[in-house]
Amino acid sequence: GDRMVLFSGPCVVESYDLCLETGTRMKAICEELDIDYVFKSSFDKANRTAATSYRGPSLEGGLEILSRVKQALHVPIVTDVHESYQCAEVATVVDVLQIPAYLCRQTDLLKAAARTGKAVKVKKGQFMAPEDMKYAVDKVRNEGNPNVFLTERGISFGYHTLVVDMRSLPIMRKFTPVVFDVTHSIQQPGGRGATSGGQREFAPFLARAAAAVGVDGFFIETHPRPEKALSDGPNMIPLREMEDFLRMLQRYWKMGREE
Amino acid sequence: GDRMVLFSGPCVVESYDLCLETGTRMKAICEELDIDYVFKSSFDKANRTAATSYRGPSLEGGLEILSRVKQALHVPIVTDVHESYQCAEVATVVDVLQIPAYLCRQTDLLKAAARTGKAVKVKKGQFMAPEDMKYAVDKVRNEGNPNVFLTERGISFGYHTLVVDMRSLPIMRKFTPVVFDVTHSIQQPGGRGATSGGQREFAPFLARAAAAVGVDGFFIETHPRPEKALSDGPNMIPLREMEDFLRMLQRYWKMGREE
Amino acid sequence: GDRMVLFSGPCVVESYDLCLETGTRMKAICEELDIDYVFKSSFDKANRTAATSYRGPSLEGGLEILSRVKQALHVPIVTDVHESYQCAEVATVVDVLQIPAYLCRQTDLLKAAARTGKAVKVKKGQFMAPEDMKYAVDKVRNEGNPNVFLTERGISFGYHTLVVDMRSLPIMRKFTPVVFDVTHSIQQPGGRGATSGGQREFAPFLARAAAAVGVDGFFIETHPRPEKALSDGPNMIPLREMEDFLRMLQRYWKMGREE
Amino acid sequence: GDRMVLFSGPCVVESYDLCLETGTRMKAICEELDIDYVFKSSFDKANRTAATSYRGPSLEGGLEILSRVKQALHVPIVTDVHESYQCAEVATVVDVLQIPAYLCRQTDLLKAAARTGKAVKVKKGQFMAPEDMKYAVDKVRNEGNPNVFLTERGISFGYHTLVVDMRSLPIMRKFTPVVFDVTHSIQQPGGRGATSGGQREFAPFLARAAAAVGVDGFFIETHPRPEKALSDGPNMIPLREMEDFLRMLQRYWKMGREE
Repeated sequence: GDRMVLFSGPCVVESYDLCLETGTRMKAICEELDIDYVFKSSFDKANRTAATSYRGPSLEGGLEILSRVKQALHVPIVTDVHESYQCAEVATVVDVLQIPAYLCRQTDLLKAAARTGKAVKVKKGQFMAPEDMKYAVDKVRNEGNPNVFLTERGISFGYHTLVVDMRSLPIMRKFTPVVFDVTHSIQQPGGRGATSGGQREFAPFLARAAAAVGVDGFFIETHPRPEKALSDGPNMIPLREMEDFLRMLQRYWKMGREE
Repeated sequence: GDRMVLFSGPCVVESYDLCLETGTRMKAICEELDIDYVFKSSFDKANRTAATSYRGPSLEGGLEILSRVKQALHVPIVTDVHESYQCAEVATVVDVLQIPAYLCRQTDLLKAAARTGKAVKVKKGQFMAPEDMKYAVDKVRNEGNPNVFLTERGISFGYHTLVVDMRSLPIMRKFTPVVFDVTHSIQQPGGRGATSGGQREFAPFLARAAAAVGVDGFFIETHPRPEKALSDGPNMIPLREMEDFLRMLQRYWKMGREE
Repeated sequence: GDRMVLFSGPCVVESYDLCLETGTRMKAICEELDIDYVFKSSFDKANRTAATSYRGPSLEGGLEILSRVKQALHVPIVTDVHESYQCAEVATVVDVLQIPAYLCRQTDLLKAAARTGKAVKVKKGQFMAPEDMKYAVDKVRNEGNPNVFLTERGISFGYHTLVVDMRSLPIMRKFTPVVFDVTHSIQQPGGRGATSGGQREFAPFLARAAAAVGVDGFFIETHPRPEKALSDGPNMIPLREMEDFLRMLQRYWKMGREE
Repeated sequence: GDRMVLFSGPCVVESYDLCLETGTRMKAICEELDIDYVFKSSFDKANRTAATSYRGPSLEGGLEILSRVKQALHVPIVTDVHESYQCAEVATVVDVLQIPAYLCRQTDLLKAAARTGKAVKVKKGQFMAPEDMKYAVDKVRNEGNPNVFLTERGISFGYHTLVVDMRSLPIMRKFTPVVFDVTHSIQQPGGRGATSGGQREFAPFLARAAAAVGVDGFFIETHPRPEKALSDGPNMIPLREMEDFLRMLQRYWKMGREE
């Protein structure tokens, strides 16, 4: 489209105050930069490495907070769904249902998300060839929902690291819009033992590369105080850096869009 | 343990007759060879590449058939669960709940399976370092269920193929028993476009290797007529070849057990 | 530096006429675009997949042609060296000695190239972590030659394909200038059986990505008639497309340089 | 063949005394176990990670020591060659010329080795699909030398580690005999910064796996005091453990041979 899309917010719904603080600032930045903003936060981190890690406020608690954020900020909301029974309820609040990467082949989950009529954002599995994501897209479209798009977030080519193969972006854009997930592409699964590590220093490099290759939008998790975040602290971008980050990114994105 | 364990049957519950034909023969072979036999078949292939592929008879229909097989053959049963709500009902029939590889990090599914009190068989994700499977095991044990074990089925180190890194077997056996999944290790995800391919010719090589390295058991899908199978035909071992296959495997397994 | 550097020419020295045709055009384009141009062609393809493939005019014949090209065009020349005994003789003609990727750990070759006093361009091995290229650089510097730089050309994470991990560019630029090799990064080793395949359609995407990430220059093989080329035809950029390709690339490169 | 072949000795020719001590013991073990023994040691480690690491006694000094070992022990000798000019001279002493893995595509080196008429042992590159090693074999055979065989030593599917894909053994045995290199398959390139690490604890597992899959022989570096070795200490098998190691291995090898 004509405008860059940004999905951004704290990894997990830690509290209403955190969501409001983050969303308010992000909305202001995106208005300034003519970016379409979608607030992102998860009510449940259902696949943490260890069972003892913080997961979130659960479905009910999380949806209640996301609903208040939506009312306060008047921005669309995206959140993850993990099991098919959650889709209908989540769809009462959010505008975009996100299918986690590990679950991108779960037919029932894709169908249930599709049937809500909301937009469905499918993350590419860490184990998937890009061309095979066509079948995940078809699972949504076959339910009569044309509003589906994909997200690149790196692929597993070895232990404890992810690699972004930039060829995947043009391959997948042949059949659907594509968002580049900056902050999960620099994740290091199991890189800190019981929690995942992250290489925040590579975020601007990979983000610029994806913008130059050509994508429809970005997914960037951010937090006002990443060092205190309850999930994904090592890879989230500090909120105070987001404006400069997006200004940089947008220059490449505009150039890439014109190719 | 003292006896080799074998999980075997047709990939998906195509019909009661198919299950009975396969299970009867496998039970006889295993009695002859002093192998502990567990009948395996799935009521639902929830992550087929394409939405149009056959999935199975669904939860109710599948459990009914599995229950009849159990009564007819007096053998324990293993089947896959895909969402947490299924676990309690599945546990009324089967003896072992299998967590699919893509779902090995889904905390709720692991917990729900654990809480049934049944044995939980977790397949190692195609994206997981073997040492990180410790956290999946802990998610089961932390629910008070000590009866959990792991399955190796290859790892994604590139597009459209899986590689078995034999180092994973001793790494995972440090914290749990390990089963080697012969027929999924030779799968080629997306290797045939809308369906997965398979390299059946490598099955005996990888199975012997795992037996020599040392494992507690094997998982081998079999079908009397693989060329007509509704799922995973290219990698299943023909039923008529299973006796010879297991005799060969057992020689290596017995030697490996004594190291 | 202030100006983008380009190493470009036909993969192998097929004839003086081919070299002159290609070099004349490339020199004109680079003058127009303020790019530092270095003519590239190999006198010997010493590691072709099959012994029966065309290798080139050999050391003596190749150097004689490269020398004539240099006199005719007044541009610096880069070519590959394969064994240490070749370095001194090659250095009588060329300005930059290129160490092939497979040979990037061969201490004697690196030392012999270093001792010529010429610039040494080391290609990163398809099997090398980027941070480990520091040792290859040190092998040159320890001989008293500070004029050494690296080239990214993709890494082997699976069979018959290469992946460019864009993180390698900033990692290697911490200790040396880095050139991005566009046309070998899209090579498919063994992808056509006895010869390597190529994915020319991905060249602009990967080149833009590298420019946005930030590099010091580019390596792009080109040929007036790639379909008739004696080596690497499937991945070379047609000469007639080079001006547009470089204009595009330079826009990203200038932006990347300013980060 | 009827007998297992073993290539074994210290990684690098540290001294005549070390070679004699190691070779004497290995010859005795192999006579006891009916194994065909070939003494292995390198006169030059031409691709050490860092230029400052010990390389060996050089061509002349190394050949002189290998010649004395041969006279003292009456066993055949294998050693590495790195550049084509070395082959003829090395062939005056040794019986098998080994092509290092990084150099397995260097046509001139393969041809020069082939032309000596000695046996040529080509290590599979860390970047090569197994079926593509056919072209390396052909480069030797096309020179009129039928005495060529291959060695599996792991493949690079990620940073700082190697994985052995056991499918490579039957694939390569379709066109040539295959040796499994136990001690380099457990190497970790760059795993210790300026030197390679090793995972000696996995040696028996991978060796047994390869024996069960089926190979023609083994390559195992050994040293009486690995902790003091000048190269590859972390992965060599202590000399005092070799007899038990080979007894174990031979049991699997004999069984594998009969499949």
